Amino acid sequence: MKKVKVRFVPSGVEVWVPPGETLREALLIAGLSLETPCAGWGVCGKCKVRMEPILRSLEVTTPELKHLTMEEIQQGYRLACQVNLTQDVEVHLSPDFLEVLKKTVDISRPSVGTAFPLRPVVSKVYLELPAPTLQDRLADWERLERGLVENRCLPRQEQGDNGLHLDGELLRTLPSIMREADYRVTVVLYENKLIAVEPGDTSGQLYGVALDLGTTTMAGALLDLRTGEQLAVVSKANPHISVGADVISRISFVSQGEKHLADLQELIVATVNLIIEELLIISGVNRRYVYEITAVGNTVIHHLFLGLDPTFLGQGPYVPVVTRPLTVRARRLGIRIAEGGYLYLLPNIAGFMGGDAVGVILATGLYQSSQVRLAVDIGTNGEIILGSAEEILACSTAAGPAFEGSRIKHGMRAVTGAVEKVAIDDDVVLGVIGEAEPHGISGSGLIDAVAELLRLGVIDMTGRFLPLEEVPAGVPQKVRRRLVEDSGKREFVLAWPGENGDRPAITITQEDIRELQLAKGALAAGISVLKKELGVKPQQIIEIFLAGAFGSGINPASARAIGLIPNLKLERIVAVGNAAGAGAQLVLLSSSARKQAEGIAREVRYVELSGREDFQEAFLGAMYFPRLSPPGG
Amino acid sequence: MKKVKVRFVPSGVEVWVPPGETLREALLIAGLSLETPCAGWGVCGKCKVRMEPILRSLEVTTPELKHLTMEEIQQGYRLACQVNLTQDVEVHLSPDFLEVLKKTVDISRPSVGTAFPLRPVVSKVYLELPAPTLQDRLADWERLERGLVENRCLPRQEQGDNGLHLDGELLRTLPSIMREADYRVTVVLYENKLIAVEPGDTSGQLYGVALDLGTTTMAGALLDLRTGEQLAVVSKANPHISVGADVISRISFVSQGEKHLADLQELIVATVNLIIEELLIISGVNRRYVYEITAVGNTVIHHLFLGLDPTFLGQGPYVPVVTRPLTVRARRLGIRIAEGGYLYLLPNIAGFMGGDAVGVILATGLYQSSQVRLAVDIGTNGEIILGSAEEILACSTAAGPAFEGSRIKHGMRAVTGAVEKVAIDDDVVLGVIGEAEPHGISGSGLIDAVAELLRLGVIDMTGRFLPLEEVPAGVPQKVRRRLVEDSGKREFVLAWPGENGDRPAITITQEDIRELQLAKGALAAGISVLKKELGVKPQQIIEIFLAGAFGSGINPASARAIGLIPNLKLERIVAVGNAAGAGAQLVLLSSSARKQAEGIAREVRYVELSGREDFQEAFLGAMYFPRLSPPGG
Repeated sequence: MKKVKVRFVPSGVEVWVPPGETLREALLIAGLSLETPCAGWGVCGKCKVRMEPILRSLEVTTPELKHLTMEEIQQGYRLACQVNLTQDVEVHLSPDFLEVLKKTVDISRPSVGTAFPLRPVVSKVYLELPAPTLQDRLADWERLERGLVENRCLPRQEQGDNGLHLDGELLRTLPSIMREADYRVTVVLYENKLIAVEPGDTSGQLYGVALDLGTTTMAGALLDLRTGEQLAVVSKANPHISVGADVISRISFVSQGEKHLADLQELIVATVNLIIEELLIISGVNRRYVYEITAVGNTVIHHLFLGLDPTFLGQGPYVPVVTRPLTVRARRLGIRIAEGGYLYLLPNIAGFMGGDAVGVILATGLYQSSQVRLAVDIGTNGEIILGSAEEILACSTAAGPAFEGSRIKHGMRAVTGAVEKVAIDDDVVLGVIGEAEPHGISGSGLIDAVAELLRLGVIDMTGRFLPLEEVPAGVPQKVRRRLVEDSGKREFVLAWPGENGDRPAITITQEDIRELQLAKGALAAGISVLKKELGVKPQQIIEIFLAGAFGSGINPASARAIGLIPNLKLERIVAVGNAAGAGAQLVLLSSSARKQAEGIAREVRYVELSGREDFQEAFLGAMYFPRLSPPGG
Repeated sequence: MKKVKVRFVPSGVEVWVPPGETLREALLIAGLSLETPCAGWGVCGKCKVRMEPILRSLEVTTPELKHLTMEEIQQGYRLACQVNLTQDVEVHLSPDFLEVLKKTVDISRPSVGTAFPLRPVVSKVYLELPAPTLQDRLADWERLERGLVENRCLPRQEQGDNGLHLDGELLRTLPSIMREADYRVTVVLYENKLIAVEPGDTSGQLYGVALDLGTTTMAGALLDLRTGEQLAVVSKANPHISVGADVISRISFVSQGEKHLADLQELIVATVNLIIEELLIISGVNRRYVYEITAVGNTVIHHLFLGLDPTFLGQGPYVPVVTRPLTVRARRLGIRIAEGGYLYLLPNIAGFMGGDAVGVILATGLYQSSQVRLAVDIGTNGEIILGSAEEILACSTAAGPAFEGSRIKHGMRAVTGAVEKVAIDDDVVLGVIGEAEPHGISGSGLIDAVAELLRLGVIDMTGRFLPLEEVPAGVPQKVRRRLVEDSGKREFVLAWPGENGDRPAITITQEDIRELQLAKGALAAGISVLKKELGVKPQQIIEIFLAGAFGSGINPASARAIGLIPNLKLERIVAVGNAAGAGAQLVLLSSSARKQAEGIAREVRYVELSGREDFQEAFLGAMYFPRLSPPGG
């Protein structure tokens, strides 16, 4: 969809929003979070701005007639919450806004470049209500509502519904809480729902947990929703590993027994509860003040977490049960946070493109600029995202196993003892995780090693180990010696056996290189298909983000050298860490970020690679290693 | 609140609606239920009408610009769903509307005069969806949504949320239902919630149950929501009778044990389930096609049904936990209807003015006319409602016990063997329920008897039995003989002991008459306070509705004779039966009726009688019996 550009004067900030979006949202996305007590109902009149050009076709609404003079309307003044954007505009900010701009809390997560205003979905209001009397016999619930209206947290209801939903469970304890607290209570609002009433003033206690549900690892971060501060981080192995290392094996496990789906759901919920438990212990936060959990994950984990049948994700045409964002009562799933708390799951994009990809796009800010960027999230699956504010394409490839250590002779995951860095000078130099004895090689170590062997000419463009006699003369003697044959097959020794023979040699085999070629070929072919679909030339890509536990751990130079990613200058290849998890944190801290994420999920165009001839063709070509050439960009 | 009058031309119908209401609602209230596929979203453009005067100040909305020409707008044409009414208007209907008018099903319940369009909150849509392909990989849920949009049941979502809520539980079965039914499914919508997806075309099966939760009796009616037909009616004793005959004793029972509230809730739910069970057996309807239960009841039953603490209803200032209408998942309360079905409880008005009173106002149409009417609902409590379209006042008095047989020497409830009618000619003539031997006297029998004794002059204005020598000469001998003394106290023998002495005499004592005077005095004083508050003169009341199991069973002439109700011509005193229950049926069958009921609950002004000096004064005066005078009105 063609977006609308909004330029703010004098701040100079530009943002792109979908047509029809309110100007208020554009302000929030731009980080211009003005304190508007009425939350966009048009009641307070504080969001006055001047627009250019003056959009005469846009209806002036009743709230605007109330807060603006006719002269102001003639001059282009409007209330930002009342304006639906339909064309590019320039917005002139009042000094009030600029004051606020100085105070805006920057909630950017580490390694990512997007700033959103700190404005969580959950909020608290402390109310001192009058006790009922014979003259004021309002019911308990309606008394609370009136208090909220008087605090301008709700529109004054001339008549009818004010849109505030109530939790039926909460009514059970309401009468005693209100009376015991002498009608001084703190109300917790979640969007338009009242989810808790607490005795006294607890407005200082407002927390949430952001979850990243990975295929291999599940991580949680406890955040203070008033400051954006990260108070604790905990991670655990995904308990589904016991069923299968990849999602496909988990899908087939579900179909093998009637109770399997419920079992897998229970495992996730139990692990999430463990993570929460540890977060609470580390931070000293009380469970009752944790009101929301946000979660990203691939579609299979998303389905298993909710107890939804993932069967049809595993069969063409790979259809999920649901893609839209879901808000579920935490207690319905058995997740132990505040009694009325919610779980928010980021929307999915397609069968093999889950909320994790939405998180990556959100956290990298790829959707924000008119220039084209590429994000590659490599975990067990590889997700590729290419685009700009104009359009974003995405595809996914089964890139993973080789990078995660599967099917590699001495492959292992990136844990203590794994060779994660390899350099070759006079001889091989290894970087081992935990500075331990090397036990195997991780995906990034493998990429480093192959990149070095390519550079030295020990491997040729086709991935073949050259016979010793064809290896270039400049290769040092110590390195040449490492090229050995085992049962007639060539391999390269990264680490010789331990002195006492208690450690076997660690080698890279010809088969290992073939596996790497398949994996990197799939990724590179995916990138190539997206480039073609989007119609961009290689030099139009101005930046590459490497995301994911694995993706952000690899050496960009090596990834480039083996042709895993396009040939850009190194400073334009940015490791962004766990961008999906950062996305979960952003949507926890900012409802603007959440809205943005939901827009992203609707707008990203998923490109299905399976069955595409151009993908097959590109794949065959991309299995070769590139000739060295000066980087572009 | 001052209401807006809408007059429809050429039908001549006039309705009053609160300012700000849409013209679409006014049409529905007037029974002009045009088939508008888009349900008021402004999508279909079918609700075109011409208004006079032309309200130029009213914004013309985007949907109107799409469906109307500029010339039409100049002439006053608008879309009814887009117009918020702010002043009295005349609306000219197109022939389309008049066609529909002929077809409108009249869902008036017996004995009540209000017609609402048959338009239940629950609706069904049969969809034939395309199966997913590689070209059409939409998720299951989103595929359903698209089907609804294509059937114009939902607005086309340019972007963002279309407002459709989904039941998380439903997602679990969605994939298998859709595939097993070959993507031919029937979708059940409840307001903006999708509550069920059924294989095949089940659109012919749409049922609901209306409950009247009385202090003594609980009744349920099963209705066909497509035709309005009542398929079965069942009633059961309220199981709380075992705890106490009146609501006050039930409130105090709750405070006597921690588990008592849960116990009472369980009893109601179990009885409701029994009622449903019998309704299903009688009608042959399948439980899975019963999607909604509506319920009326006093505030105490309302609270106990939901498990809400009624304690503060029993202590000044008599504050309920909540008054607004509540929509609760039936399964959350353990009520067994369709898995995704809902329970709707009519709103309360005040501590002792529950949804049953709202039902009475709705069903009698008291809110609809500019002329003042009085409704008296006499059960264990007496509820008095006085007003018109302009304003409605209500109060409640503890009128009940005498009318229900309590504290009356030979009093009993109106069951088999109760004397329910008494006439005196040459001698006493009794009407006994079930044509059985008389065992006691019901409230209506007592009122009849006292009215007759007053007429004959056996009782004087103060309620005193005259000494035999002062009884007027015209009183027949057989009647005089019945005036006896027992232990120095006068009483009147209605029925002599049985021939074999197996039946004791049934008498009316001086104390019985005093009890009746207290009860009728309270009611009459309540009416008098409301008249004063509303500022109406006696002749301004043009009609009286007698409602409630007891209220509608009494002889209007006798009620008038003892001064229980104002002195109107008999044809203006109408027994309307169980109007509260009729209200529950109306809101089940018509969302317009529901909206009306919610408006009524907000607008009725509750007058608290306790502590009012003018009530005490009126009470003392009203205990006297009236002098006979020609009826007014």
